Amino acid sequence: MGHTVKDIAAALKAEAFGAVSLEVTGAAEPAAAGPEHLALAMDAKYAGGLAQGQARAALLWDGADWQALGLEAAIYAPRPRLAMAGLTALMDAGPGISPGVHPSAVIDESAVIGAGAAIGPLAVIGAGVTLGANARIASHVSIGAGSVIGADALLHAGVRIGANVRIGDRFIAQPGAVIGGDGFSFVTPETSRVEEARASLGAEASAKNSAWQRIHSLGGVEIGDDVEIGSNSAVDAGTIRATRIGRGTKIDNLVQIGHNVQVGEDVLICGQTGIAGSTTIGDRTVLAGQTGVGDNLSVGADVITGAGTMILARVPDGRVMLGYPAMKMDQYIGASKNWRRLPRLMQDVAALKKAVPLRGEDD
Amino acid sequence: MGHTVKDIAAALKAEAFGAVSLEVTGAAEPAAAGPEHLALAMDAKYAGGLAQGQARAALLWDGADWQALGLEAAIYAPRPRLAMAGLTALMDAGPGISPGVHPSAVIDESAVIGAGAAIGPLAVIGAGVTLGANARIASHVSIGAGSVIGADALLHAGVRIGANVRIGDRFIAQPGAVIGGDGFSFVTPETSRVEEARASLGAEASAKNSAWQRIHSLGGVEIGDDVEIGSNSAVDAGTIRATRIGRGTKIDNLVQIGHNVQVGEDVLICGQTGIAGSTTIGDRTVLAGQTGVGDNLSVGADVITGAGTMILARVPDGRVMLGYPAMKMDQYIGASKNWRRLPRLMQDVAALKKAVPLRGEDD
Amino acid sequence: MGHTVKDIAAALKAEAFGAVSLEVTGAAEPAAAGPEHLALAMDAKYAGGLAQGQARAALLWDGADWQALGLEAAIYAPRPRLAMAGLTALMDAGPGISPGVHPSAVIDESAVIGAGAAIGPLAVIGAGVTLGANARIASHVSIGAGSVIGADALLHAGVRIGANVRIGDRFIAQPGAVIGGDGFSFVTPETSRVEEARASLGAEASAKNSAWQRIHSLGGVEIGDDVEIGSNSAVDAGTIRATRIGRGTKIDNLVQIGHNVQVGEDVLICGQTGIAGSTTIGDRTVLAGQTGVGDNLSVGADVITGAGTMILARVPDGRVMLGYPAMKMDQYIGASKNWRRLPRLMQDVAALKKAVPLRGEDD
Repeated sequence: MGHTVKDIAAALKAEAFGAVSLEVTGAAEPAAAGPEHLALAMDAKYAGGLAQGQARAALLWDGADWQALGLEAAIYAPRPRLAMAGLTALMDAGPGISPGVHPSAVIDESAVIGAGAAIGPLAVIGAGVTLGANARIASHVSIGAGSVIGADALLHAGVRIGANVRIGDRFIAQPGAVIGGDGFSFVTPETSRVEEARASLGAEASAKNSAWQRIHSLGGVEIGDDVEIGSNSAVDAGTIRATRIGRGTKIDNLVQIGHNVQVGEDVLICGQTGIAGSTTIGDRTVLAGQTGVGDNLSVGADVITGAGTMILARVPDGRVMLGYPAMKMDQYIGASKNWRRLPRLMQDVAALKKAVPLRGEDD
Repeated sequence: MGHTVKDIAAALKAEAFGAVSLEVTGAAEPAAAGPEHLALAMDAKYAGGLAQGQARAALLWDGADWQALGLEAAIYAPRPRLAMAGLTALMDAGPGISPGVHPSAVIDESAVIGAGAAIGPLAVIGAGVTLGANARIASHVSIGAGSVIGADALLHAGVRIGANVRIGDRFIAQPGAVIGGDGFSFVTPETSRVEEARASLGAEASAKNSAWQRIHSLGGVEIGDDVEIGSNSAVDAGTIRATRIGRGTKIDNLVQIGHNVQVGEDVLICGQTGIAGSTTIGDRTVLAGQTGVGDNLSVGADVITGAGTMILARVPDGRVMLGYPAMKMDQYIGASKNWRRLPRLMQDVAALKKAVPLRGEDD
Repeated sequence: MGHTVKDIAAALKAEAFGAVSLEVTGAAEPAAAGPEHLALAMDAKYAGGLAQGQARAALLWDGADWQALGLEAAIYAPRPRLAMAGLTALMDAGPGISPGVHPSAVIDESAVIGAGAAIGPLAVIGAGVTLGANARIASHVSIGAGSVIGADALLHAGVRIGANVRIGDRFIAQPGAVIGGDGFSFVTPETSRVEEARASLGAEASAKNSAWQRIHSLGGVEIGDDVEIGSNSAVDAGTIRATRIGRGTKIDNLVQIGHNVQVGEDVLICGQTGIAGSTTIGDRTVLAGQTGVGDNLSVGADVITGAGTMILARVPDGRVMLGYPAMKMDQYIGASKNWRRLPRLMQDVAALKKAVPLRGEDD
């Protein structure tokens, strides 16, 4: 299915020039583009690529001369990365889930399926589930008893929604995502060594019997509108109250959200980040890949972490953090520069000690 | 289904006061509790919450005056977190797997299914599998050829048990957990650069051909009684001997247990921790979230790590460890404080160098 | 099924001695070996184990005297770990997928299935899929519309192949691996705080509206011959061009490969490593467990990282790296030794300051 340059420009709220009724069937990097592609050349460094490739139309950087570049048509977008959102949405062929309910799906008779829902092969929908209008459920998805999912959901293959999960509209879950598994919460009959070590900052180390008893998860999960969860990520159910993910929040692959965690709105959580139990994350915060956040902490709104940051204490609103343990980013960058200067510093101190007779050195 | 205050107290081995035949249908945080809930107010800070909510009965902190708090009935538990274990077990409605074998499940005729087992839709049970009594197998679970699982197992949706896996009684696996995948074990025909780098602590860097040949995993996995494995975690099969997880050990989400690893009893392994091949973990050890343990190491019994600790050398029994690379926790906390003091230290040394003429400085 | 000592030696290109027509049915560690096993005693430290066990034949270390060890037959292999590859391949009973197509599998009529393919129960093969000869597809696998997989593929239970994925020959995927999920790529209408923080190294912290708009993934995934992907790992689709994994590369469990990433040939990526979007990894590079690599970076060929290394800047060819942030391994080991010396250094500087009157100290 093709799109005219004019229609694409309209979708991107951008300006089009030249043969705007030219039709393209896909997008490509400039050097790899064929005549059927819209070349994506949103930076002057792609000028050479355009010459190598065969595109007749391109999305161009501000200030480019489309005619001098040998193009027949061009689109100029004010914010290139934003244009990518509009363009890729337009050209996405979708997940290929056939309309209607596949005969191999196992749907409990008490489930309520919204109008226009497409349910793929071998999906399992439990008792009392409510699924909103126009949901697209891929193969091998399971939805646990009593869970409620809003309109326009897209659940990719093998997504697991547990029981007692409430999700808003336009939810997207990538393959293998698990929502509503049991929290990791255990207790020993007597005070455990972990409790002692926390109280004493690590000094205690008495060996004790510790047969772990399970605290069950009764609180389920609540997820707002416009949330996306990545491949093989896991969001655990809360103990008494629900684990919550706020509206507009996006979660990448292999992320762990512990029980009782409260994530705010429009938060971005990158791959392999882990948030331990009962921690709160404020609105618009961005956690880079492999960030860790300890349990029972408060991370403010508008916080940003660098990759691999390990948060072990409260973080106020607006902080930019990096490191293990987390410090303010500029402070950490300074500290890691200082590590490299340590050998020289040690030499200096050794030389000073030779030059200066220290009182008490020979005590 | 409701429970009387009296029955709940009996289950928790706790004392009940007031209208102990009052019935509740669930538990709630004090401020959110309705009249049908048991409020969980195990700390004096919840007194205000009780006034806000509508609970008629509560689980109270030691020393609280239930009558002054306006309650009709109250339970006092000696160790609040332990009471949570008993209470949540009592109130857990369970995973909602219908009794019997769902007609869409694919069960090899040579499999032996214990009495009282419930097998959900689209589960696949391989040839020669033995499944204990009262097992609960959710939808989309697969169990590989010849594997043996004990009594009272609970396998949530999409759990993957490979071939040649032996598991004890009361096993719980959260959605997407994988037991018995192949180990990550490869070898090059000639000595590889990794072997050289290990031998030389990183000095060598000769480029070499390295077409990796696979070492297959023949040893399977052995898991003791009362083990739990979290969502999307992976336990690899051993090469010749089995990978082993000891009795009573609990493993959180997204954890990686490499081939040949031997985990002791009553161990707690938190989310996103990784244990590389052939490493041993002693009894009752607790590994916090995102801990890493290198391959072929020995971590003792009763060890505790802080979040994100990276263990790259042997750890004796009873140590409390933190950091990258792992140090004793108090030592690491000291070191990270010192990093913050480095800029001042460097200023001091610079000032000293100005004040003290160093011999050889101008050589 | 048994193998004679002679046949095993021939498969390993090794020499056999004694009763070479003796047949064994499996391999075992020396102390645990029964008379039906080939004992694996490739180091002199196993001499005692051989005496404890009951093996009649063994794979021995160079220089061992098989007759003095009481064996009836022996094999000597020049490179023991390499011999393990050959031996375990020979003795692997395989994944137990029955020949032919299981009647419960759901295969689109437009899919092209190669000769000799075995497809297990409840697999789902989408429209336009091409599956090579002798593929072995376990239960619950799904393959998305239009994807192409080469000959001799082995997809374990619950593997998810998305749409628009092209994979070479001899591909192996462990349970729960996800290939071709959507990339984690979002943009705000205005410049976001993350972009500002990157530009200013963390100094900016203005609160802003950030409703994230999705950039869709149109580029799919391309994977070369002889690639293996571990349990519950995730490889995201590219945005415009494909995410690429080169020939011979092996990827462990719970690894995240972001969108647009280009991984070279014969690369080894260990468990829980994460590679962020648009980064390039050179040929033969080895990334140890829990390594992190930031986005839009270039990591050269023949690079080696230690466990938990966090790469936040370009790495040239051949470097051996360790640490957070990553440094050359010897430099990092030096730095971490220096941390332990800091308390002494601080004492020294304090003593020097007492001994030396510094100008300006009292300003």
